[in-house]
Amino acid sequence: MKAALLTIGSELLDGRITDTNSVYIERELLGKGIVTSAKLTVRDDMNEIRAALDYLASYAECIIVTGGLGPTVDDLTRKAVAGFLGRGLEFDASVYVMVESYFRRLGRKAPVGNKSQANVIDGSKVIPNPNGTAPGFYIDTVYNTRPLVIAAFPGVPSELRGMFPAFIDRLSSESSIPSVYVRTVGLPEGLLNDRIAELLPDGMSFGTIATPGMTDLRFDNASRAEIDALLDKSPLVRRKTYSFDPDETIAAAVVREMTARGKRLTTAESCTGGMIASMITDAAGSSMVYLGGVTVYDNRMKERLLNVSADTLAEYGAVSHETSLAMLAGLRGIADTDYRIAVTGIAGPSGGTDAKPVGTVFIGFGGADGDTSLRFNIPGGRGMVRARASAKAFEILYDALIYGKPDMDKMGALEIRRGNGG
Amino acid sequence: MKAALLTIGSELLDGRITDTNSVYIERELLGKGIVTSAKLTVRDDMNEIRAALDYLASYAECIIVTGGLGPTVDDLTRKAVAGFLGRGLEFDASVYVMVESYFRRLGRKAPVGNKSQANVIDGSKVIPNPNGTAPGFYIDTVYNTRPLVIAAFPGVPSELRGMFPAFIDRLSSESSIPSVYVRTVGLPEGLLNDRIAELLPDGMSFGTIATPGMTDLRFDNASRAEIDALLDKSPLVRRKTYSFDPDETIAAAVVREMTARGKRLTTAESCTGGMIASMITDAAGSSMVYLGGVTVYDNRMKERLLNVSADTLAEYGAVSHETSLAMLAGLRGIADTDYRIAVTGIAGPSGGTDAKPVGTVFIGFGGADGDTSLRFNIPGGRGMVRARASAKAFEILYDALIYGKPDMDKMGALEIRRGNGG
Repeated sequence: MKAALLTIGSELLDGRITDTNSVYIERELLGKGIVTSAKLTVRDDMNEIRAALDYLASYAECIIVTGGLGPTVDDLTRKAVAGFLGRGLEFDASVYVMVESYFRRLGRKAPVGNKSQANVIDGSKVIPNPNGTAPGFYIDTVYNTRPLVIAAFPGVPSELRGMFPAFIDRLSSESSIPSVYVRTVGLPEGLLNDRIAELLPDGMSFGTIATPGMTDLRFDNASRAEIDALLDKSPLVRRKTYSFDPDETIAAAVVREMTARGKRLTTAESCTGGMIASMITDAAGSSMVYLGGVTVYDNRMKERLLNVSADTLAEYGAVSHETSLAMLAGLRGIADTDYRIAVTGIAGPSGGTDAKPVGTVFIGFGGADGDTSLRFNIPGGRGMVRARASAKAFEILYDALIYGKPDMDKMGALEIRRGNGG
Repeated sequence: MKAALLTIGSELLDGRITDTNSVYIERELLGKGIVTSAKLTVRDDMNEIRAALDYLASYAECIIVTGGLGPTVDDLTRKAVAGFLGRGLEFDASVYVMVESYFRRLGRKAPVGNKSQANVIDGSKVIPNPNGTAPGFYIDTVYNTRPLVIAAFPGVPSELRGMFPAFIDRLSSESSIPSVYVRTVGLPEGLLNDRIAELLPDGMSFGTIATPGMTDLRFDNASRAEIDALLDKSPLVRRKTYSFDPDETIAAAVVREMTARGKRLTTAESCTGGMIASMITDAAGSSMVYLGGVTVYDNRMKERLLNVSADTLAEYGAVSHETSLAMLAGLRGIADTDYRIAVTGIAGPSGGTDAKPVGTVFIGFGGADGDTSLRFNIPGGRGMVRARASAKAFEILYDALIYGKPDMDKMGALEIRRGNGG
């Protein structure tokens, strides 16, 4: 079964409200093996709603409508669906009892306008609303010789969530293999696509989803075992895969692996300015593995908190291998942990030079094997440079955790400098 | 002119990604007086994309497409639009130079798959992408005897935002008064709504948009002068208004005001774990005002970096007025700045007690007037507690900047404790 979502409301098209209902509905449907093939938002306009129903009915067997069930004149969902199906719409006293009882619980009388909420489409089933006045409905019918289910819910998230589970239990569960997600870090989308495309068996399909420094793969019609077999053919993709959970961030995966191995970490950040610390501490349980760190934005802080010498800063600059290695040494002086990360770079928009343009970032990593500093040239604006530098730091950490020490040659660095510490 | 948005990507229909691009685009269009009349998301399927273009072209004069411009086989936007308009699609060497130069900045060669990104539809204009590989395009044409503009952008938010302003400047501005945005911090949405509703003159309308700790107001059909007159009637709302720029974060506003006043800041974070530092350093120019700070997640780091005594931690606990004030004192020992912020709390999910449940957060503020610690009880999950605590810290800083010292009685704290420092 293919489903389509139709959201009704002019207020959803003026840049004010981020739609969160559809993410909820899509997940609930996927849990039943039902794929959402389209979602459409239209204004409170009778003609446009009718046209939208017509368009969606042409390729989905289930249309889920949200919004437009309120008591006001611009709430058109009931009338539009009745008109679309050519069915009658009549006041139902037993439904009005539900609407009235909601107001009674609030100690108030139902306003006159709310009477329209008790209008029911011929042959529809009413879905009670425990958290508001607007009842929902669903209709199981045939449209243009094909089966069609139309269900309607209020757009208020708490009301929708109180009603949707009862509806979805009525939909037959279909036999389908859910998608498998593969989350990778550090591989550009194009390269990842090339590698997977050349290894992909017949009948399997995939797509990529890129975020700064990270790319996800989504495989349809494939089991986890088949994906594992495929990944075994590309050691690079396998190595850069950090999770099969579509919701696990790279920081959460690092926290998970550090917890399992009893490892601990400190950080020293300049250009990422606390972003790495914030990503780690966003993960529940991070207090077991992350001691803390310093944000040494100003050079005085590098000297004061990390003992980076004024000579090093003057001679090589704050953005240099020498400073990133000195920051690692400074962290060792603060706490004795298994891993240390230091980042210094030029996020922009200003501060770049010919020798060190915006996007020049040095990432220092300290582990059992000593200290290493990597130089990168990261494209993009300020936010992108920060996000990609942070992702790279986690990529190095994850590699160190899984393989004992990171393979620095596979990090895409322009230069690699070994330090003395360890 | 009516616009419609078409978002392409199977990954946007499986309950993982909340669409934020459309809110951005709708706002930008509204600023030009252009109403968005529908938004539609479809999968990476050639037939479905073609059908979607056909449906949207039936009632919008401008279709803005996002997604499907990547280098992979499931990126179909260029082919679909060319097919829909019956136009040719050809490789353009000058566009490939742009794609290649992006990879050159990374110190890498462009993968073979990225060649497809240089395919250009006959008669289209290319929109360069400074933050990624995928160029966009726009076409100004006639479809079914009506004028039609089709523009296409990558779905990655930072890439879209880097390209959209250049496009929208080409669209003719229509006569309309743009919306006025009022960004507030620390006021609950319901309270703000009630205050504005009772002051609102006839003919003016508004809406609220809430994010953790912050609520925006959007006024339609109102000038900035009228909004100023309205805000003058509510000293509370006026005081908590930090920006009229819909894109300026509270952290960026604090950086702006600190720069104007030559003030400087350090931070010490426990439960927010670097989030405040990261929000500040996300703002360009923050290096002029923010020296840096410490993320003292573990108690040893509080002792080591901030000289919080083991006795204080043992007697009062890490989450206490005593510890937040000791963290402020520790910051004073590191650097002599105008302002200092210290945050310690229980973000959850574990760690709460009857006396100090999850959501208990102490925020210390140090300024010319000495040190103060405020106790809050912040509702919501881990992410919400961290985000709201960070917003509260910025609310205090902004108040201090504009009024010389913050009005601590208006911060919604459960307790206020004065320290000795200053």
